[in-house]
Amino acid sequence: MTPSAAALDTIRSEVDRSLREFVDRQRPLVGAPELAPLVAAAEEFLAGGKRLRPAFCYWGWHGAGGDDDPALFTAAASLELLQASALVHDDVMDASDLRRGMPSAHRRFQAMHEKSGWRGSAEQFGEGAAILLGNLLLIWSGEMWRNSGLPAESLAAAQRIHDHMRTELMCGQYLDLLEQAHEENTFDSALRVALFKSGKYSVEQPLRLGLVLAARGREPWIDRLCEEYGRHVGIAFQLRDDILGVFGDPAETGKPAGDDLREGKRTMLVARALAAATPSQARTVEETLGDPDLDAAGVAGLRQIIEETGALAACENMIKEYLDHALASLEGAPITPESRTALADLAVAATSRRT
Amino acid sequence: MTPSAAALDTIRSEVDRSLREFVDRQRPLVGAPELAPLVAAAEEFLAGGKRLRPAFCYWGWHGAGGDDDPALFTAAASLELLQASALVHDDVMDASDLRRGMPSAHRRFQAMHEKSGWRGSAEQFGEGAAILLGNLLLIWSGEMWRNSGLPAESLAAAQRIHDHMRTELMCGQYLDLLEQAHEENTFDSALRVALFKSGKYSVEQPLRLGLVLAARGREPWIDRLCEEYGRHVGIAFQLRDDILGVFGDPAETGKPAGDDLREGKRTMLVARALAAATPSQARTVEETLGDPDLDAAGVAGLRQIIEETGALAACENMIKEYLDHALASLEGAPITPESRTALADLAVAATSRRT
Repeated sequence: MTPSAAALDTIRSEVDRSLREFVDRQRPLVGAPELAPLVAAAEEFLAGGKRLRPAFCYWGWHGAGGDDDPALFTAAASLELLQASALVHDDVMDASDLRRGMPSAHRRFQAMHEKSGWRGSAEQFGEGAAILLGNLLLIWSGEMWRNSGLPAESLAAAQRIHDHMRTELMCGQYLDLLEQAHEENTFDSALRVALFKSGKYSVEQPLRLGLVLAARGREPWIDRLCEEYGRHVGIAFQLRDDILGVFGDPAETGKPAGDDLREGKRTMLVARALAAATPSQARTVEETLGDPDLDAAGVAGLRQIIEETGALAACENMIKEYLDHALASLEGAPITPESRTALADLAVAATSRRT
Repeated sequence: MTPSAAALDTIRSEVDRSLREFVDRQRPLVGAPELAPLVAAAEEFLAGGKRLRPAFCYWGWHGAGGDDDPALFTAAASLELLQASALVHDDVMDASDLRRGMPSAHRRFQAMHEKSGWRGSAEQFGEGAAILLGNLLLIWSGEMWRNSGLPAESLAAAQRIHDHMRTELMCGQYLDLLEQAHEENTFDSALRVALFKSGKYSVEQPLRLGLVLAARGREPWIDRLCEEYGRHVGIAFQLRDDILGVFGDPAETGKPAGDDLREGKRTMLVARALAAATPSQARTVEETLGDPDLDAAGVAGLRQIIEETGALAACENMIKEYLDHALASLEGAPITPESRTALADLAVAATSRRT
């Protein structure tokens, strides 16, 4: 095991521990037996995940000279609550049935309603409960961040970034909804959605938070590193996500094959495919993309078009270029050598993942 | 105009101003033209409302000796963002078409999608956009609270209450969903829902926040006042809401007549009606309550049962008793005389309102 892989294991176990402790501290408030399904759903959601966001935050902190500190792990772990909130709400908005191979939160609450033979619409109950679960996770993420135990000066220095990150995330997701709905999808708009709905809060801002917490302020080199490394890894991370949404193995992604095609996601992959498609290919895309009942043959047909138009190769190439750019920008950054190595490894892991 | 009515006018205009300034400060972040409908929806939502929560917060602050301070108005105004978030999400969860006589947020986004002739389901787009709008308002409420400019010691003293209030609200709304779905509805469970989904965050906690911000800490008399006055006014406030949901005048409430009946809300009013109903009345309630297509005759029939069983009179009586209890508890509270008068007036206003 490389040193940075060993460090990632430590980060993961510290994040797991912090999240368990945080939820435990909430129990007096959420201890009523009727609330148990809500808390259980939160816990189950928090038990999974690659912990990439906390890792970027940790290596930012370490890179700017921060020592290992339980308070930092707690602050970094709070990013997983934000991410869990986004996933729960995403699945409601996309009407997704599965998440990590298990029923999504709203389907889980819907099943509880059906099994109990309750009154009213089980589907509406499921959606309502999932909206509230997502809200609870969103509130808790801010609470855990603020109460992490980090020095007040560190938190004050990073607070504005933290606030912006969350507004950017909601606006980015709204732009994503628009992108699926609009007639026109350009490379530029696909790139902007990739940056705002995911890249920023997955990579750039967690890294910036860690750096600014340790440095207790923004500095030009921090913003440069976040833009050159963080932003490029963030976009490449989302481009990989787009590819996995079309070509991913359901056994690994925990999502049905070609899920993004059924949901009609207008990603860079689709924008590039349409830009290079023959009239007949373009017609097939327009007619089948976003069909919720798209079968295996339909998925295979769209995959073929995405490959034949060169869109897949183009996106793989973009990922490689963004990654190379990010790795090069690490060279001159005035961060600790351990952080430089770990951020390089993380960039590769985040952009070559299979889940 | 009485002194406390004049003060309420001042509170309202200060709250309006603070909210406008807060949204203006967000513009650099949300200035992209595509985000304009999101920001416009937020602004429109924030322009309305009775400002009761800020008023309870203000009079708590004043009662514990706090001077007029723009920072306090800002902190108090942030409670309107929390309330706006809850309303936007509520309307999605209840599939409500109207809010204050205008289309609800999700219907508004749905209409935008339909009018633009966009791709995909307009309904799904509307719901997704409204979920994100609610999230944005929820995030902003915490941000505005923290950045109000109040002294750090005040904010630190009140932070735990602020955190708890938000978790209580989400859990209370989940209990409300359960209450609509469950087979059994008791007086106790109806009362608990009234307290947690609304009473606490509408009255008790805003008041406690104001008191603790000024006193820079919790004191036994503060908790006593919040429980004896705040909790009782809060429950009576929600009981009034329940009555307006069935008997309110659409021209005043901005909601269709009998909306709560169509949505199948299991309130104290319904619990009391069922407890005193004849078998034939009970059958009518079970068969028609929650029917989304309930017509005017159906609404009239249910209203008649609620009146004939004495449920309406019983709820009016509960409101009166809770109000009397609250007013009596103000007598010995060590707060400023102006605050005592204003809180008495506010209690009457909150529980006798027609909208």
